[in-house]
Formats: sequence, structure tokens, C-alpha cells
Amino acid sequence: MFVRKHSAMRQVVIEHNRGGEGKHHICHILDPAENPAEMNGKGKMFADTFLEPGSSVGVHEHKGDTEAYYFLEGKGLYTEDGKTCEVEAGDVTLVQDGHSHGIKNIGEMPLRFIALILKS
Amino acid sequence: MFVRKHSAMRQVVIEHNRGGEGKHHICHILDPAENPAEMNGKGKMFADTFLEPGSSVGVHEHKGDTEAYYFLEGKGLYTEDGKTCEVEAGDVTLVQDGHSHGIKNIGEMPLRFIALILKS
Repeated sequence: MFVRKHSAMRQVVIEHNRGGEGKHHICHILDPAENPAEMNGKGKMFADTFLEPGSSVGVHEHKGDTEAYYFLEGKGLYTEDGKTCEVEAGDVTLVQDGHSHGIKNIGEMPLRFIALILKS
Repeated sequence: MFVRKHSAMRQVVIEHNRGGEGKHHICHILDPAENPAEMNGKGKMFADTFLEPGSSVGVHEHKGDTEAYYFLEGKGLYTEDGKTCEVEAGDVTLVQDGHSHGIKNIGEMPLRFIALILKS
């Protein structure tokens, strides 16, 4: 039986993630970086994350994988291949292999989103 | 650029899901059932779901895939291979290929969780 309590998850805080601003808090729901079998070798990340107000993940290119952001709380400005779109709770974005994206918290509360990276 | 607003997601309500009780509300974040390419052919479900109070997903076996439940709100009783464990916000469960699981809302609020099914 696999039940992992929240307190047992690997949690990290990344400053200036991908060249962005401020702090990105990441809680690894499943942890394929530690154990690839947790995502059957098919994924690289399944995490519950938040950006502090004003913080961002800098624009970066995906190679060999795709990444979805599913927003749970807050207000963000999403960038993909130079275009931007405001996002809020309930929205999902998906960057394809070979394309670039970034995300910035433009609200006054944490911008919380699930990040899911699957191999191409 | 892929940005899907919440209102554009496929949302369904399943009664007696897998032989369980009550109603299971499912919002498909990505929708591989409609378009397998959205999960690179590697996944079968990535959904934001909730069970109404007293509702459940009946115990069912997974064949050819695994499923994680990541709990966002509420209180549940998770069953896997006949064993049970209480779960709450921040916990994750993961049923492996060939094993069985179910989940019941034992709280007074909706039991909300992200469901992620990946192929084996």
C-alpha cells in the first residue's frame, strides 16, 4: 500500500528558478527524480508548487518532454514562445517539446499550481 | 500556445463510480481520452475531481496502468488491496498495476483530489 503523507514529501525552495525572480516552492507529490518507477519511467515531475507574489519561473525550453501547469490559486502571467496570457485557478497550460514557457505571479497571493512533466 | 480555461474543460458527473455510492465529479485537466497526444500517449487521465460527502469510488483493479490520487481538500478513507488508511489534504496514494483501490469521502465537505493515471 502506497500512502505518502504530506510531511514525508520532498519539499524544496528554488530561488531564481530558470533565471526568474524570487522564490518557487516545490513539493514533490511523486518523486521520479528520486525513484523513476513512481511515474513508470514516463514522467519527470508531478509536484504541487507555488510562487510567492512577484516571483517567477524564467522562460526556458523543454527538450524531450512536455509540461502542464494546472492552476489552483492566485493570478499569473503565462508566457509561451513569446506570447502571454493571464491565468487563474482552474486553467491549464501545456508546453510542447521544443517550445519555451515561463510563469510569473502577478497577484497579491501565492500562485499555486500543479506541475506535470511527461516524457515525449 | 496551449491555454485551456476552466470553462472549456470536459466535466462529467459519474453516479456510482466503479460500483461506489453517490456522485463523483470529474473535470478533465488534460483529456487523453479525447486526444491521447495531450499526455504524449503515456497517460490515461489527469483530472481534478471531487466526491460529495458520503460518496465513493468503488474498489476496482488497475490493469496496464497505475493511478495516483493527490488530495486537495476533505477527508477520505482510502482502500488498497483490502487495507485502509485515512487521507487528507496533501497526502498522495498510488496504486500499482495489478492492484485494487477505492476511495470514500468520510468528511462533511467535498473530498477533492487530483487523479493521475499513467500507463505501465
